[in-house]
Amino acid sequence: MRILITGAAGFLGSHLCDRMLSEGHKVVGLDNFVTGSRDNLVHLVRNKDFTFKRHDVSEPITVPGKLDAILHFASPASPNPASPFGYPNLPVETLKAGSMGTFHTLDLALIHQARYVFASTSEIYGDPLEHPQKETYWGHVNPVGPRSMYDEAKRFSEALIMAYYRSKGADTRIVRIFNTYGPRMRLDDGRVVPSFIQQALNKEPLTIFGDGMQTRSFCYVNDLVDGIYRLLLSSEHLPVNIGNPVETSILNFAATINRLAGNPAGVVYSPEDRMDSDPQRRRPDINRAKAILGWNPKVDLEVGLSRTIEYFKEKLGIK
Amino acid sequence: MRILITGAAGFLGSHLCDRMLSEGHKVVGLDNFVTGSRDNLVHLVRNKDFTFKRHDVSEPITVPGKLDAILHFASPASPNPASPFGYPNLPVETLKAGSMGTFHTLDLALIHQARYVFASTSEIYGDPLEHPQKETYWGHVNPVGPRSMYDEAKRFSEALIMAYYRSKGADTRIVRIFNTYGPRMRLDDGRVVPSFIQQALNKEPLTIFGDGMQTRSFCYVNDLVDGIYRLLLSSEHLPVNIGNPVETSILNFAATINRLAGNPAGVVYSPEDRMDSDPQRRRPDINRAKAILGWNPKVDLEVGLSRTIEYFKEKLGIK
Repeated sequence: MRILITGAAGFLGSHLCDRMLSEGHKVVGLDNFVTGSRDNLVHLVRNKDFTFKRHDVSEPITVPGKLDAILHFASPASPNPASPFGYPNLPVETLKAGSMGTFHTLDLALIHQARYVFASTSEIYGDPLEHPQKETYWGHVNPVGPRSMYDEAKRFSEALIMAYYRSKGADTRIVRIFNTYGPRMRLDDGRVVPSFIQQALNKEPLTIFGDGMQTRSFCYVNDLVDGIYRLLLSSEHLPVNIGNPVETSILNFAATINRLAGNPAGVVYSPEDRMDSDPQRRRPDINRAKAILGWNPKVDLEVGLSRTIEYFKEKLGIK
Repeated sequence: MRILITGAAGFLGSHLCDRMLSEGHKVVGLDNFVTGSRDNLVHLVRNKDFTFKRHDVSEPITVPGKLDAILHFASPASPNPASPFGYPNLPVETLKAGSMGTFHTLDLALIHQARYVFASTSEIYGDPLEHPQKETYWGHVNPVGPRSMYDEAKRFSEALIMAYYRSKGADTRIVRIFNTYGPRMRLDDGRVVPSFIQQALNKEPLTIFGDGMQTRSFCYVNDLVDGIYRLLLSSEHLPVNIGNPVETSILNFAATINRLAGNPAGVVYSPEDRMDSDPQRRRPDINRAKAILGWNPKVDLEVGLSRTIEYFKEKLGIK
């Protein structure tokens, strides 16, 4: 297949490029580098099956040659208002990527009669009132809240994709991605994994917002990408959760990172107002992914964290 | 003021044109006539303070001369899948009006430093789990459901408007409009008021979907327009509900229409599958509108229905 990947220079996008190339496909990557990084693609520069175009998906897209699949992964994705790369600081860019970007990629999919996969998110469930979250849960999102630029853009995209599927016959798929971690996360986007690892490698105490008892379920990026690849090959048109259902408290997560990184500095607690709408708990129900895609996460948290710590060590020049 | 009204040929848009002109303002009306009707504006053709331009708001908008206010009211608005004018049959048009249309009108508001009012809807509350609905209620909407093209487009617009207000200083307002009725509703869009009145004037039994015990709160259009005008003059930037909190069962509503129209044919019941996601109950909490705008609905249901029946009689040529 010849596959267009938007957000190709991002954390998930660049891993998708790698996986698609390793499966023997050709990849056309797009990115506008608002939050993506050239460093994530530098190893592909000499790959003859990979081409790259700097492009903002909020502008119409034209690609020479036939496309067989389009993966729309372009969007700011960090909720951290303290980071310049967090979507609270890129509200209009985020809303454009999840509306105009979705229109343009869907129109392209129709023209090419290409398979289409959209990167949706567990954020569409908002601060959920049901645990774990099934795909049938409608979510609990404040349309005018501090995260609404992301949550509502993703919800809008889902509605738009279903409209193109139902009324125009577009060959669409929707993956709802839960917390994912691994190499190539931005060091500076304020998400918990890179923040913790950076502090651990600097032998500083890890900063915990709130009491640390809020849980997260972290999926290693290779597992996530495997689920997305299976979804691409499937003909499932309704949303599918992909994530790791193993819940870990933030406190336990911090302790594991400190142990793996050999950091004796422990943790410090900070008031929670930085993330006043951060959900207390979120965990995927992955029964649909198991049944439809035969998918299951395989990478153990300690293995995945070790690989991620290695990546950040190299990135930071720590021996 | 010189005021741009999108959706000017629609039910609400045309009443807004009348009210603004009667207050001494100048009005520029836009409509693409996808669901709006020329008949609603024909009485304004010779009004020197009114100009009209046929335009689709999903395309960028340029208007010669200074604008002081923009009211973005363009969108299909009937949920009826059996009508060609229902948004289930215009999904992409609806999603464009509530995304690109909102981007373009907001950009225009920034250029002109104009006041901005967006027509949001009680549909953003979905099938609500709280009664009555306060503006702080986050709603209960299925992002991939049969009404999502409308509900999610309106929620997206709210998020976008708050982003323009918070990050670009746009002078925005959001009105969440509950069920409204009155002259100039489309006879053929399948909404309950015109459907009932048309059946009553034809001396046919009124068709009730389900058991008729589901309630609605109906606001007469002049009351609604008065609330919107007050909001325009205010400096309230968070969403404000405008609607009539008096709940009426569909059955009672049908009986009132039959009595006012002199129709002895009663009602017939039909299974509910036509509207499988139609909310069972929805009623506005209007305490914010009362407190901030000094607004209260004034037109009694029987008075409003009588005027509406007169309009439809004339429209249908019934003496």
